[in-house]
Amino acid sequence: MGTFEGHLLPGLGLLMYAIYYSSLMSLALLRKQRMLKHPLLPRKLLGCRLFLPVSYEAVVKVAIPAFATVCEYYYPLGVNRLKMIDWKDPRLFVFKDNWEHVTMFGFFILSGIADIVSQAQRAPWSVKLERAAEALTFYVVALLMISHIENKSVLEIPVHLLFVLPAFLLALLLTVEIWVPDNAPLWVLKSWMALVLSTWMLQICEMYIPFTGQPWRADNPTDLAFITIFFCWHLVLGLTLLITIYGLCSLWHHHYSSWTKTLGARYQRCLTESSSEELEKQCGSCGTGWRCVGTAAVSSVHAHLGVHSTALHPRI
Amino acid sequence: MGTFEGHLLPGLGLLMYAIYYSSLMSLALLRKQRMLKHPLLPRKLLGCRLFLPVSYEAVVKVAIPAFATVCEYYYPLGVNRLKMIDWKDPRLFVFKDNWEHVTMFGFFILSGIADIVSQAQRAPWSVKLERAAEALTFYVVALLMISHIENKSVLEIPVHLLFVLPAFLLALLLTVEIWVPDNAPLWVLKSWMALVLSTWMLQICEMYIPFTGQPWRADNPTDLAFITIFFCWHLVLGLTLLITIYGLCSLWHHHYSSWTKTLGARYQRCLTESSSEELEKQCGSCGTGWRCVGTAAVSSVHAHLGVHSTALHPRI
Amino acid sequence: MGTFEGHLLPGLGLLMYAIYYSSLMSLALLRKQRMLKHPLLPRKLLGCRLFLPVSYEAVVKVAIPAFATVCEYYYPLGVNRLKMIDWKDPRLFVFKDNWEHVTMFGFFILSGIADIVSQAQRAPWSVKLERAAEALTFYVVALLMISHIENKSVLEIPVHLLFVLPAFLLALLLTVEIWVPDNAPLWVLKSWMALVLSTWMLQICEMYIPFTGQPWRADNPTDLAFITIFFCWHLVLGLTLLITIYGLCSLWHHHYSSWTKTLGARYQRCLTESSSEELEKQCGSCGTGWRCVGTAAVSSVHAHLGVHSTALHPRI
Amino acid sequence: MGTFEGHLLPGLGLLMYAIYYSSLMSLALLRKQRMLKHPLLPRKLLGCRLFLPVSYEAVVKVAIPAFATVCEYYYPLGVNRLKMIDWKDPRLFVFKDNWEHVTMFGFFILSGIADIVSQAQRAPWSVKLERAAEALTFYVVALLMISHIENKSVLEIPVHLLFVLPAFLLALLLTVEIWVPDNAPLWVLKSWMALVLSTWMLQICEMYIPFTGQPWRADNPTDLAFITIFFCWHLVLGLTLLITIYGLCSLWHHHYSSWTKTLGARYQRCLTESSSEELEKQCGSCGTGWRCVGTAAVSSVHAHLGVHSTALHPRI
Repeated sequence: MGTFEGHLLPGLGLLMYAIYYSSLMSLALLRKQRMLKHPLLPRKLLGCRLFLPVSYEAVVKVAIPAFATVCEYYYPLGVNRLKMIDWKDPRLFVFKDNWEHVTMFGFFILSGIADIVSQAQRAPWSVKLERAAEALTFYVVALLMISHIENKSVLEIPVHLLFVLPAFLLALLLTVEIWVPDNAPLWVLKSWMALVLSTWMLQICEMYIPFTGQPWRADNPTDLAFITIFFCWHLVLGLTLLITIYGLCSLWHHHYSSWTKTLGARYQRCLTESSSEELEKQCGSCGTGWRCVGTAAVSSVHAHLGVHSTALHPRI
Repeated sequence: MGTFEGHLLPGLGLLMYAIYYSSLMSLALLRKQRMLKHPLLPRKLLGCRLFLPVSYEAVVKVAIPAFATVCEYYYPLGVNRLKMIDWKDPRLFVFKDNWEHVTMFGFFILSGIADIVSQAQRAPWSVKLERAAEALTFYVVALLMISHIENKSVLEIPVHLLFVLPAFLLALLLTVEIWVPDNAPLWVLKSWMALVLSTWMLQICEMYIPFTGQPWRADNPTDLAFITIFFCWHLVLGLTLLITIYGLCSLWHHHYSSWTKTLGARYQRCLTESSSEELEKQCGSCGTGWRCVGTAAVSSVHAHLGVHSTALHPRI
Repeated sequence: MGTFEGHLLPGLGLLMYAIYYSSLMSLALLRKQRMLKHPLLPRKLLGCRLFLPVSYEAVVKVAIPAFATVCEYYYPLGVNRLKMIDWKDPRLFVFKDNWEHVTMFGFFILSGIADIVSQAQRAPWSVKLERAAEALTFYVVALLMISHIENKSVLEIPVHLLFVLPAFLLALLLTVEIWVPDNAPLWVLKSWMALVLSTWMLQICEMYIPFTGQPWRADNPTDLAFITIFFCWHLVLGLTLLITIYGLCSLWHHHYSSWTKTLGARYQRCLTESSSEELEKQCGSCGTGWRCVGTAAVSSVHAHLGVHSTALHPRI
Repeated sequence: MGTFEGHLLPGLGLLMYAIYYSSLMSLALLRKQRMLKHPLLPRKLLGCRLFLPVSYEAVVKVAIPAFATVCEYYYPLGVNRLKMIDWKDPRLFVFKDNWEHVTMFGFFILSGIADIVSQAQRAPWSVKLERAAEALTFYVVALLMISHIENKSVLEIPVHLLFVLPAFLLALLLTVEIWVPDNAPLWVLKSWMALVLSTWMLQICEMYIPFTGQPWRADNPTDLAFITIFFCWHLVLGLTLLITIYGLCSLWHHHYSSWTKTLGARYQRCLTESSSEELEKQCGSCGTGWRCVGTAAVSSVHAHLGVHSTALHPRI
């Protein structure tokens, strides 16, 4: 899938995820939450009762890469690339690019499965597992991109290196979050890196079908220099997107808060709900289907309770 | 602006800023302050009342790069470089060096805007935002310098790599300061790195118009070796400048302290001022228009108050 | 020993050690131990009383590399490679690969000796010494592998670089453990890295005798790309092995716990034993011949006692 | 001084310093000191009273490099290399190797001066300044070595890279010590790295006058491989030296302790001394002319006193 569509699908998928994560993070900052909550799917979906609590995030992490994997093998229609070794050809291995992409998608699916497992267990190590699986995914993306670069044109090398840079930084940030899960500046940095990564991926798409109508030239140092310049502009674009998302979430948050204040009876409803569904161990104090991703220490759980009882509820 | 003047202006700008920051830091150390304060512009400037509190630093960060950006496009007079794509030419992109420099200047302006925003908000995340914006600026400078090196002569490669080294270290130090804002050794290291960066930039100017009258030769390994030797000497030069600035600030501080002691009534005046301007939330205990850049934690604010009441005031 | 057997022996040795360490770690996690204990050899071995307490681990670390060293010099039989300088040949040094391998084995033996010394002393610095010796071993492995790469074929370079990567990460993790010895996520990461390292070593063996019957081709970029893809799959294979080992240990742990509960008298027996063998300073509360590897601080010892008295015993 | 003697003098100087530092560190560990003390010169030297307290270490740091600098310019006798620019020659710069070496020596002298200044001030930042100056010295050594490598033979590149490795690690350790000054594992690592650095420097000497009588050959991959192997052996050699020094210090410490126990009146004498020389602010409890290099925090000073009163004195 070294084509326009092959970069557009993962690029849009990453962008969607980055925007989703940024708005989640913005709301968490606005609500002064000390840990990030992942909204769960409703327990009754299409008439069936789910066995496990599953977050929207995990579903997206599994569904989109699974779809992309099928496309890798069978798109365009009539093609079958689901083989690794061509026994008739002395060159032995075939379809390397497809297997590389499928490997990356596989690690995203793995991260989704880790999310589902950890959300089903709700153990102190849940957050650590989720972050570690995400970090592994981006390390693998960076590693495969570096090996991807070999035998590419002079033009594609800086383009892919500048893709590896935010992917590796994202992986590093996620690794740090294994030990320091509830640090707001890390959330912001992570959102921003994810936004830069996805807009840069769409920029790579643009290089297949340039807006100017004229192809980029590998033999021209000016064209190469503008790749780095554009990357710096994407850093600012990512910041702008982040600020826009935060602004929209802020508007929604303030509108929603005043609306609930008018209705008033919110706190009572939430208490009733949580008592009727006590087995589901929802974080009852919020009344939504959100789950509190706690950290390991018992003290942190106490702190969390303290936050709910003293800091959050007076605000809602 | 790959010319003598093109390097002289940013070099002098950086040097001015480094000297300004060094003296700020020296005074903070001499006054045993636990956080660095940025002096603000007077609220009434040229007859107009400013809407926002703006530090001198932010003004300089916005004004000088904005001037340099205009120079990039329209200097020498009669020239217009404000276009990126030459539609008639198949080489497509033009003026790469100018767009690189303008991108760098743009990030300095962005850092200045971040300063203004954070100083207007005075939130716990203010210092984090300021440091993050500065760190981003220097990461971008390092990144663009690395891409700048391509297609340069053998002589310019070590010169620019040795420019990237302090710029990257400065960016790293500023990144660490996002989480550890009030660490005096980090301030000293930062000042020193900024001084080295700016004197090295002036050294690059010297290589356009050498003092010896003879050009540096790229084909001579001895000339290349002396670039690294001179860089090491610039490290010592930076140290010497730092010690000189600290010494001068120390003289001024001791003279100023004894002068205020003689006048005596300082503490009273400061109390009166702060009560009359309470809405401006000045750090009243100092009596100047300086703003206390607090850290996030409430405990740190308490510590800060403790410092003012017990440690600072008996000394002033 | 740049042969199939030469890579198989160390690969299997590493795998055995990685599986052993993973199960030790799994049991420690299941028993909620705050420090990792190394089971010791029985004090009476083959009729002789050992002078020092020696862990199984240390014996393996000394025995297997010692055997491999002998093989390096005298295998196949009739060969003697125990010389470094060929005085008749102007090329001077001979058998470089063998001396490289022997150097690596020597550092594993050194790590085993460090284990024995630290287990005999039981000082607060014991854990630090063990971790430092292991870290040194893997740094040396990484360093020698990097120098090993020179003058190798294009095919062997990525294979060995991808061997250096987990070895270096393992060394880094062990270095961190010098200062942070009792961190469970670090144990898990270490086990995983060790499993990846050993399965990757067996993968290198496969490249000598490929399953497909056809040799890997250095001139084919597709073959080179699949090396990185396979490495990513080994990362997943390592995870699978780790989860399998944890699952088996979990089964064993739960079966063993219920069995001891039935027998009941466990806690009494353990007390009696520890009083009769008080001189050996066993961690009596567990009743096995295991040694508690304490950390430096006295507070940590108190915490350890607290764990035994409150957390562990009610579970056993 | 790219000669046998030119590498022997600094190598022996470094080795002497490394052995001195290792024995200092061993004694500190044996005496369970929480901070490292640098023995000072006697206040009356050759009949003159010194104005400042000067440690032996600082004297050595200034004296040996100053002697080496003179040798660089005027050895062999009759030569004068004290000029940088040859105005008659169009190649302009001359004597690059000498200026490189002199720059390195200069930074060692700078570190010695920093020691003298900080020991005269005895401020909380004293240790930080000393460590920072030492770190800077080794960063400069690493930087100059990297630029030294250019235009060298294939044989000298790995030799110098393996010199840069411990020098850079030493610099990193010293940088960490700016913030964490009193960490015993860091002392041990530092001693070891310094020993490895100096024995490796003597190994470089050996390559000028090989023991085997035959020169090392750059065109032979076996010779190149043995450079890395020998470096690994130097790591073990450094360890052996460190253990030997620790053992000798341990013997001396136990002999000295029992000797003082016999004499008995030590504690009284020490108290008297410290009262008579109170102005010199000696660490009276040890009775020697040693200076306690305290850390910034007041709590650490209390801890220090605690160590003296409870832990040390009962042992002496």
